Amino acid sequence: MSGAFVVFEGGDGVGKTTQVDRLCRRLERTGREVVRTFEPGDSPAGHRIRALVLDPATGDLDPRAEALLYAADKAQHLHAVVRPALDRGAVVVCDRYVDSMLAYQGAGRVLAAAEVEQVARWATQDLRPDVTVLLDVDPRQAVQAKADLDRVEAAGLTFHERARAHFLELAGRDPSRYLVLAARRGRDELAEEIWLRVQRVLSRAGGGAVVSPRSGRLEP
Amino acid sequence: MSGAFVVFEGGDGVGKTTQVDRLCRRLERTGREVVRTFEPGDSPAGHRIRALVLDPATGDLDPRAEALLYAADKAQHLHAVVRPALDRGAVVVCDRYVDSMLAYQGAGRVLAAAEVEQVARWATQDLRPDVTVLLDVDPRQAVQAKADLDRVEAAGLTFHERARAHFLELAGRDPSRYLVLAARRGRDELAEEIWLRVQRVLSRAGGGAVVSPRSGRLEP
Repeated sequence: MSGAFVVFEGGDGVGKTTQVDRLCRRLERTGREVVRTFEPGDSPAGHRIRALVLDPATGDLDPRAEALLYAADKAQHLHAVVRPALDRGAVVVCDRYVDSMLAYQGAGRVLAAAEVEQVARWATQDLRPDVTVLLDVDPRQAVQAKADLDRVEAAGLTFHERARAHFLELAGRDPSRYLVLAARRGRDELAEEIWLRVQRVLSRAGGGAVVSPRSGRLEP
Repeated sequence: MSGAFVVFEGGDGVGKTTQVDRLCRRLERTGREVVRTFEPGDSPAGHRIRALVLDPATGDLDPRAEALLYAADKAQHLHAVVRPALDRGAVVVCDRYVDSMLAYQGAGRVLAAAEVEQVARWATQDLRPDVTVLLDVDPRQAVQAKADLDRVEAAGLTFHERARAHFLELAGRDPSRYLVLAARRGRDELAEEIWLRVQRVLSRAGGGAVVSPRSGRLEP
């Protein structure tokens, strides 16, 4: 496997899409193959799995069944999208991955976090990203910024606070594979930090010498 | 939980349906609530999961994804059908359960059997049947009896032989919970042995004294 695997994590509305966009455009300008993808749902089978989970007609879904369906989506996404791209030497930029599953399933507090993690790691054959960019924000601040605090009841906020704590805990367990950034900083500043880190990953990854099409020179 | 959980296992065409029919009819005559069900697919979500696995449009499904989807089906089936019935004190008669998943996923020899078992046990919260009736037949004999040996190529036969060996191994691990019967014996004889065993299970299960509506007497 000679490609590189870059993942973005964090709550909803923290600006992941913007930063994924910017990183992908910048990577494409270097001439590398970039595969932009997301979880859950970005494979034909995954699309149907996600629709099944979200469809009200599915009825009352057991928490284990839900976790297993998301794990199946991950296994299929790895098989159909991520691994083939990495094997071709592409840079895979993925919006959400295992950490989101662990953070959100864990925040529900119905299932034991360690057990959900075991299932998710089995599904993904424990493939870890080369770097996970965690865009971190306090859910309470995010909500106040949007001035829709009344729409989000206390229970929902607690859920998002638990998810955030879980994201940070996962980053704390393996800091060398994470780039944790305060999501409320300026977009340009964030994009620059992410770009520097991804360049370091690519230079380490071997196949990752970055050719700048403008200068034709190898960048670090 | 005061009901009883009876499972039928074995290859295709060994006569499970006939014996499930006969057992359910006989149980119903005792006045007990009987829930006849099957895996995979016997819940609204399970039906959709099964359809997804079998639909050619799903494309090339990763073996882990497939195992996780079947496990999700089991978790949901337990949640939506089996547990509520057992909690009401019903006798649940289920055509295929965890052993089928282990035997067939294992027979494919792509995934480690112990890992698939761990996933299946997690999905079902390790709920074990009170008795599993294993209708056992040598796949080679079954095929010859049907005179369609030419339709089944050697590879298919090996697959079914492996599945059979796995069923027998599971029964051998916990013999007190299994009734292994040679499926080619007479139907009446099989039905009688199954009935005797299920009656023993029901008398052990506490809520399981069987009232015969004809005589009004308690049967053993």
